Amino acid sequence: MSAAVLSGKELAETIRTETATEAAGLAAAGIPPRLAVVVATADESSAWYVRSIARAAEKAGIVCDVVDLGPAAGARTIRETLTRLSDDPAVHGVILQTPLPGGAALEDLASAIAFEKDVDGANPLSLGRLVAGLPAFAPATAEAVVTILDHYAIELTGRHVAVVGRSTVVGKPAAHLLLDRNATVTVCHSRTADLAAVTSGTDVLVAAVGRAGLITAEHVRPGAIVVDVGTNPTDDGGLTGDVDAGSVADRAGALTPVPGGVGPVTTALLLRHTVHAAARAGEKGSG
Amino acid sequence: MSAAVLSGKELAETIRTETATEAAGLAAAGIPPRLAVVVATADESSAWYVRSIARAAEKAGIVCDVVDLGPAAGARTIRETLTRLSDDPAVHGVILQTPLPGGAALEDLASAIAFEKDVDGANPLSLGRLVAGLPAFAPATAEAVVTILDHYAIELTGRHVAVVGRSTVVGKPAAHLLLDRNATVTVCHSRTADLAAVTSGTDVLVAAVGRAGLITAEHVRPGAIVVDVGTNPTDDGGLTGDVDAGSVADRAGALTPVPGGVGPVTTALLLRHTVHAAARAGEKGSG
Repeated sequence: MSAAVLSGKELAETIRTETATEAAGLAAAGIPPRLAVVVATADESSAWYVRSIARAAEKAGIVCDVVDLGPAAGARTIRETLTRLSDDPAVHGVILQTPLPGGAALEDLASAIAFEKDVDGANPLSLGRLVAGLPAFAPATAEAVVTILDHYAIELTGRHVAVVGRSTVVGKPAAHLLLDRNATVTVCHSRTADLAAVTSGTDVLVAAVGRAGLITAEHVRPGAIVVDVGTNPTDDGGLTGDVDAGSVADRAGALTPVPGGVGPVTTALLLRHTVHAAARAGEKGSG
Repeated sequence: MSAAVLSGKELAETIRTETATEAAGLAAAGIPPRLAVVVATADESSAWYVRSIARAAEKAGIVCDVVDLGPAAGARTIRETLTRLSDDPAVHGVILQTPLPGGAALEDLASAIAFEKDVDGANPLSLGRLVAGLPAFAPATAEAVVTILDHYAIELTGRHVAVVGRSTVVGKPAAHLLLDRNATVTVCHSRTADLAAVTSGTDVLVAAVGRAGLITAEHVRPGAIVVDVGTNPTDDGGLTGDVDAGSVADRAGALTPVPGGVGPVTTALLLRHTVHAAARAGEKGSG
């Protein structure tokens, strides 16, 4: 047996194409969608990621401003920059890139992103609105998990899903989105007593820990669906997931690859959110 | 075997006594703690609950204003009232009582409560901050679940807890608080495929559904700890929980009673939150 590969590439392409069409329509109506990415780090993999967002945005007809504050920027400068971009009517989406300079917490600084422009769902207000069932942008990575499962018509209602990892940016919001889709959701983490015992009892396993190869065959129920959110750098400059694909592929029913799974869908959703934010700003402006 | 009774009465009494001492200190310093309860319903059990809060507040030395807008109040009036109370420096805590007039959603209206005064954690911003690990008041009922478990020295780290119910006011925030305490948390609900199969595998069961007697012996692992959040009215004017205590008491290791379990602790925590909000307002005023 070998698990079906749940690629995210074609899905990402579909979302990007739809987004480009919407972006062109908005630009023609005088509202060119604009995304601002605030960077305060010299981290190389972060720079790589920001360039890939900028390229994808341009291709989709979204203006992308990279606002590089440098690794020495203080929390106050970052907050002021986010506030200024939130107040700028020409900007529709604002992202604060991690890692942040020493001591600064994303959750805290992201409060300065207006929630209407918070296209990566980083402001705690967005998270609270999401959990409360009010309109808000979900963190793109968390939404990508559910979007990829939907794309492959994987039923969630009544299914038992294990989310491994409880970060504010992925694990917790993914758990909420899955709960909203009527899944029974178990959140596991580093303090879970017997991880394999818990996860091997579930229909779907979402790995969002950030530890290469943590999830092995013993963690997976035969035939289960496995979503790998991990993007761990390898020595040769590549990426590897939280799932040990070698052993899991023989046991799982289906598995998202890394790279080429959740990652491209995440970027595509960031662009979709930006275009949706621009469309709403346009409605407000004309309303 | 008969389950130990995890009464909330003595714990509530302890919290109220501590709170009364803090309230007296604040009053002596010229900051008499003040709680405003906004009511827009003619519901009788709601009126009973509001009177019990008001009485408990007075006993603890907290001024309690019941702002009765009547059952015909519109969303706009309610929102304006919450904004006015949030702006009033003499008021430290604001609660919006449910049920609300037709069509109004607590999550939406509660956005008008300043999060510093949101002593029952109803504003989505409070919820998001809670989930993100930033300071915020938790919904008192959800916090009461963890507080009562702590009081009886029930270990949560590494234990598997099932939360049955996914409401914004109880189930979801309780799941987060338990996760923060390093429990492995499974959230179950009406669409969970085989509830008993899931819950009977967990160490702790939190029932927060609002359906009398839903949880029976088959849902409980022998020796498990059961926390009953349900407060369902009975025909004779009493209250009964979500747990069928008759059958569960022979199987569980410990069980919170209804009434006299989570309920009194919830009210005591609302008062504690109000005094803490007053203390912080005092620090800000003098800082």
